[in-house]
Amino acid sequence: MEKIFASLITIGDELLIGQTIDTNSAWIAQQLNNIGVWVKRRVAVGDNKKDIIQALEEESRDAHIILITGGLGPTADDITKPVLNDYFGGRLIVHEETLHSVMAFFESRGLPVLQRNVDQARVPDTCQVLFNRRGTAPGMLFRKHDKLYVSMPGVPHEMKGIMEDYVLNIIKEEFHTPALLHQTLLTSGMGESFVAERIKKFEEALPASIKLAYLPNFGLLKLRLTAMGKDKISTAALLSEHFHELKSILEDIIVVDEDIPIEQVIGRLLKAAGKTMGTAESCTGGNIAHMITSVAGSSAYFKGSVVSYANEIKTSVLSVPESILQQYGAVSEETVKAMVAGGIKTLGSDYMVAVSGILGPDGGTEEKPVGTVWMAAGDSKDVVTIKHHFRYDRARNTDMASVAAINLLRKFITR
Amino acid sequence: MEKIFASLITIGDELLIGQTIDTNSAWIAQQLNNIGVWVKRRVAVGDNKKDIIQALEEESRDAHIILITGGLGPTADDITKPVLNDYFGGRLIVHEETLHSVMAFFESRGLPVLQRNVDQARVPDTCQVLFNRRGTAPGMLFRKHDKLYVSMPGVPHEMKGIMEDYVLNIIKEEFHTPALLHQTLLTSGMGESFVAERIKKFEEALPASIKLAYLPNFGLLKLRLTAMGKDKISTAALLSEHFHELKSILEDIIVVDEDIPIEQVIGRLLKAAGKTMGTAESCTGGNIAHMITSVAGSSAYFKGSVVSYANEIKTSVLSVPESILQQYGAVSEETVKAMVAGGIKTLGSDYMVAVSGILGPDGGTEEKPVGTVWMAAGDSKDVVTIKHHFRYDRARNTDMASVAAINLLRKFITR
Repeated sequence: MEKIFASLITIGDELLIGQTIDTNSAWIAQQLNNIGVWVKRRVAVGDNKKDIIQALEEESRDAHIILITGGLGPTADDITKPVLNDYFGGRLIVHEETLHSVMAFFESRGLPVLQRNVDQARVPDTCQVLFNRRGTAPGMLFRKHDKLYVSMPGVPHEMKGIMEDYVLNIIKEEFHTPALLHQTLLTSGMGESFVAERIKKFEEALPASIKLAYLPNFGLLKLRLTAMGKDKISTAALLSEHFHELKSILEDIIVVDEDIPIEQVIGRLLKAAGKTMGTAESCTGGNIAHMITSVAGSSAYFKGSVVSYANEIKTSVLSVPESILQQYGAVSEETVKAMVAGGIKTLGSDYMVAVSGILGPDGGTEEKPVGTVWMAAGDSKDVVTIKHHFRYDRARNTDMASVAAINLLRKFITR
Repeated sequence: MEKIFASLITIGDELLIGQTIDTNSAWIAQQLNNIGVWVKRRVAVGDNKKDIIQALEEESRDAHIILITGGLGPTADDITKPVLNDYFGGRLIVHEETLHSVMAFFESRGLPVLQRNVDQARVPDTCQVLFNRRGTAPGMLFRKHDKLYVSMPGVPHEMKGIMEDYVLNIIKEEFHTPALLHQTLLTSGMGESFVAERIKKFEEALPASIKLAYLPNFGLLKLRLTAMGKDKISTAALLSEHFHELKSILEDIIVVDEDIPIEQVIGRLLKAAGKTMGTAESCTGGNIAHMITSVAGSSAYFKGSVVSYANEIKTSVLSVPESILQQYGAVSEETVKAMVAGGIKTLGSDYMVAVSGILGPDGGTEEKPVGTVWMAAGDSKDVVTIKHHFRYDRARNTDMASVAAINLLRKFITR
């Protein structure tokens, strides 16, 4: 059984000066992994002919499949197409279908078609065109010395479309990929090194074909087992056996035994129980609601949210008594409890989660330093609270607080 | 003037299977860029000795500085430290300061210190330790053939701490970096190729030392000029001259002439005017509020938000008349107008932005297909509306709708 290797090349100065975060590579890697292709390396280079050619040469050394994204726009800084044309030795010809599509795109918007837009329809005659239904830059497939090269635009939804419409199917047809399977456990309440200690014997006894990875995840911990084998059935059976053993060792700290985020875990719980939730947020500023509603179908169980950033909203919309705010302050156990009660009244949901804290960089006091966050979760009868101290920057503190709040509600519901 | 090149190596299987999105590289690239260091390549490899060593060798070919992140955790899959120890030829010794810090970390939490935690304090005797104040894995600096190698943990805030505490200063001291300056223009309302057409002559006449990049940004367009030169003063003057010319050509579509996001633009406008805002969100589910509150100090102008995901909340909390919802539906111009009026009443802010739409993947109808989003922005006297059709997936549609809504409010305020 030969392992099939892929290498990803991302082209664009914007990646090298840090103006853009590369989310394409992670998505592509996931998709390749699902079909048993192992990504060996990922390389990012600038819009520079010499660097692009060097990357093409180096990455084709160990990889069977080279996927290239970026550098295909209509502007002068995008040079990937002429470089590929040179590298694979051809000449640029017009691709009729793309030309029609470019014309139609601009006409439907009542805009004139510019020369630089028409040029998007030129492709090397050495490539197989992978038609881009979502944009003007076509995908291009080249072959050289038994290797497969695919060039795609860097715009995420255009790249994803070309991958799903063509590339993944072509790879599945042309390569005999091994079975590569993952099972993931999400845990809560125990640090990485303590989990590692508890599963030490299990880890040492794993067969060579199964790998274990620890993936800290905003205060939770993901454990992933990866198995590789000749066929899917026997690989799945071997993986399942070890995954069950892992689950039994960690039974008390399991959140979910699938690779889904906590916002999806809570959604399933609510859906199964036919219950609804809402959020009453101060410092997290709507991020918990955003996470919950990022799940398709969340309208079945999510009623809504009150973001009470200003204190008077806590009073006017969430009915937090003025006296509580004055006596205990906005960042207090009493306030988040009152936010839960008031939120349930205002939004009419079965469950409510409330958060109030100081996420930084400023606003801390001696008594309540930056990172102090009170949270509460409950229903109309009962409520639980917890105080956290987050030690990161504003953005990360927001994410950690949001995950912790959803996890608190999960624990309340499953208590 | 010699250009100083850096190369970034990211180590970890989680990056190659796509379980983690690499945000570290973008941050590091920005920091290096600020001090005049050019990132030539970025490479990601797995937790595999051969691949790590190959990356070290290849990346030191063209780069003066090699920054390595990841693979330093306490668990068995992390092998970066022993590999570096072998590569730079040394033996592992105990670093006292790190050992004390590890002990104190666990003691303060009432947890026992495990062997694997103590092992975090072992470092190659060939390295200079860069003490990690935020975690247990120390940074390590190696030198070989006039090249600088720095290994840092992959946890973002730990890596950032080590970069800011040591690495950036060391680089500034040891390398004579050229001046590398950027100026960025954010525009709205004109597509990439039409902007390119309008500034064609300007672009062609740019001196070789200035580069122009087009960076589409959730429906807006960023244009970035980068200038490189011997000294900061003359480079800044040359860049400024061309940036002013660019601004004058694009005057009618400029959002802001700095590299700041739209949520910061709106914050400045509100602060300057001494006004407040709030959001009334349906399909965006709190994401606009989250974006606004991601800006430190936003409590000065952000009152809060009502996320009315369920229709009854639109009625009960935002006072949208039942009759409007019945006659026009939740996704309609009339509803978002009523949400603005109701939001101002409920939250007491000067301005309000409201959004209602269908972001997918399901929920579309013939008349209102997936991607249809109505938005309104206004104050107690006046309101403007716009209808959008977004063509992407749920997550991207959410981001595009949020940026468009904030931009609509910006236009309303500056009209």
